[in-house]
Amino acid sequence: MITPKSPAKIDTVRAIQWSDDCLKLLDQRRLPTQVEYLELCTVEEVAAAIRDMVVRGAPAIGIAAAYGVVLAATHAWREQQDTWKQVLTEKLLQLRGARPTAVNLRWAIDRMQAIAKNCQGDPFSMLLAEARGIHQQDIEANLEMGRIGAEYLRNCHAVLTHCNTGSLATGGFGTALGVIRTAFSNHFIESVYVAETRPWLQGSRLTAWELQQDHIPVTLVADSTAAFLMQAGKIGWVIVGADRVAANGDVANKIGTYSHAVNARHHGLGFMVVAPVSTIDPGTSTGADIEIEERKPGELLEFSNVRIAPAGVQAYNPVFDITPAGLVTVLVTEKGAIETPDREKIRSLLR
Amino acid sequence: MITPKSPAKIDTVRAIQWSDDCLKLLDQRRLPTQVEYLELCTVEEVAAAIRDMVVRGAPAIGIAAAYGVVLAATHAWREQQDTWKQVLTEKLLQLRGARPTAVNLRWAIDRMQAIAKNCQGDPFSMLLAEARGIHQQDIEANLEMGRIGAEYLRNCHAVLTHCNTGSLATGGFGTALGVIRTAFSNHFIESVYVAETRPWLQGSRLTAWELQQDHIPVTLVADSTAAFLMQAGKIGWVIVGADRVAANGDVANKIGTYSHAVNARHHGLGFMVVAPVSTIDPGTSTGADIEIEERKPGELLEFSNVRIAPAGVQAYNPVFDITPAGLVTVLVTEKGAIETPDREKIRSLLR
Repeated sequence: MITPKSPAKIDTVRAIQWSDDCLKLLDQRRLPTQVEYLELCTVEEVAAAIRDMVVRGAPAIGIAAAYGVVLAATHAWREQQDTWKQVLTEKLLQLRGARPTAVNLRWAIDRMQAIAKNCQGDPFSMLLAEARGIHQQDIEANLEMGRIGAEYLRNCHAVLTHCNTGSLATGGFGTALGVIRTAFSNHFIESVYVAETRPWLQGSRLTAWELQQDHIPVTLVADSTAAFLMQAGKIGWVIVGADRVAANGDVANKIGTYSHAVNARHHGLGFMVVAPVSTIDPGTSTGADIEIEERKPGELLEFSNVRIAPAGVQAYNPVFDITPAGLVTVLVTEKGAIETPDREKIRSLLR
Repeated sequence: MITPKSPAKIDTVRAIQWSDDCLKLLDQRRLPTQVEYLELCTVEEVAAAIRDMVVRGAPAIGIAAAYGVVLAATHAWREQQDTWKQVLTEKLLQLRGARPTAVNLRWAIDRMQAIAKNCQGDPFSMLLAEARGIHQQDIEANLEMGRIGAEYLRNCHAVLTHCNTGSLATGGFGTALGVIRTAFSNHFIESVYVAETRPWLQGSRLTAWELQQDHIPVTLVADSTAAFLMQAGKIGWVIVGADRVAANGDVANKIGTYSHAVNARHHGLGFMVVAPVSTIDPGTSTGADIEIEERKPGELLEFSNVRIAPAGVQAYNPVFDITPAGLVTVLVTEKGAIETPDREKIRSLLR
């Protein structure tokens, strides 16, 4: 058993910050080579930052959007004190549509608008308090999920994770990566395999970077090496986050998640999904109802302006996939864990 | 049904050529942006070219090695006409060890040495004839495998392939890609999905390029998108080559193959392995006896001199994996197809 050099930390990275009446986002497109914050002072800038993946990860998108609503409302109030609430709704259309798959975006905007609706006078303070509340609750939910999920990993040795679900993807600490942090700090696991996560390389660029900062032993692998690791007995669990969980437990998450789930089942390994209840959408009946975002083929055709496929070739770049609930061993939320999730168990959890 | 603009062609690309007493290899590291041939006039240069992946693909490695033996023997004869056969054996040690997984390398060298053993006088003509014979037989084997394998793809619409198994990986035409070429030319399939094949991107750089030259509709996907394509019913078969087939039918092939096989089985799809009998090694009892080459972590940590993971992070880069025979629907060789291959069926085929 390796003794961790430092215990699991909260907010190793503070990727989302509010100061001087503006939102500051760590530009995740530049990691790991550059640590650079962008200052966003309008909702249009926040929408663009979400669309262009300055910030990504379902919970982080929700939090950034909540601060975006603060900016939108402040400007609407300054422009039209009589009709600012209508103006706000219009201002939020672009933000709402910035990315289609993560439900947290819509969830956070709805929650902020519900507060705005009841605001009398300048909405700034009330909305900022709500956004900060969403942010803080997300961190607390992560810590709780970390505690709950880590219990499954006793004597597991090593796990595999996909994409980035850490401080960068959330309010802080992380969903799947929060469970991994807690499990490591409790000496339940010794090391983490990270799938590089093509095409955007969230695993290489972001997760490897976060784990390195926490002194958690990390080994990067190609996505397609996951099955080989399982066959060789090198991992005990696959642990991932979620962009949306349907009412029946189907999980939309980063492309590649479904393949890991199929492989985990084939090898008799556990497959854990870690997501706050804000990611569960009772309005989405099954995974078939979830819109899967397709991003530009260029993500597969070029890298850093170097062409990696011949000119004119077609590429198909869906960036999420759907893992049926039947392949999920346990869904970990801050309200508790659901083993072999289904519609009835999820309904009970949300009650 | 799409009418192909041009029928399947042999030698669309002549990646391995012998002229002016030297071996000319299309440098596959530079594709698809540059089409550049290297001229190799010593066996040491051939060994380095195989090791450094100027040429790759099990059959192509075997053919290049055969020409390498011609160069080695010619030089040995010139140096020491009395003892050239002993000198040759020493000269071939480096070539034999250039890459560990593909059995064709060893197979071709053994076959060439058997001829050398019986040479009287200058060995050049006899050995060159043998190397050319290996090259030509490989092309003929590919055409035959194309005919046999394509029969399985009637009304299949689209298939998925991994890595590169075409003219670049063989003497010409291809193994898995040969089956795809024949199936397309016979109107059995309409299009091909190609997995990019991390980390070396043989799918993006080589297979997409070859299919484009043949006007076969090709769509590039991330490796981890394969399962999503299967779930969506977009493909009927997965078709791959092999670097070595063990006596029991276990298949060593490019990392990611095993994951595709598990996913194909999960979705009830066919999984076809296309390999000449020279790739079957009766001396390898099962996949567990096959050495899996690990290449430099740098292939996962950098791309085109741009760092894609933080400095100091560890990466694990096995470049082959083992697919158990039980997951193979059909093994196609030039001597016939074996459905649900096993030790007994393979023994009969090789008899």
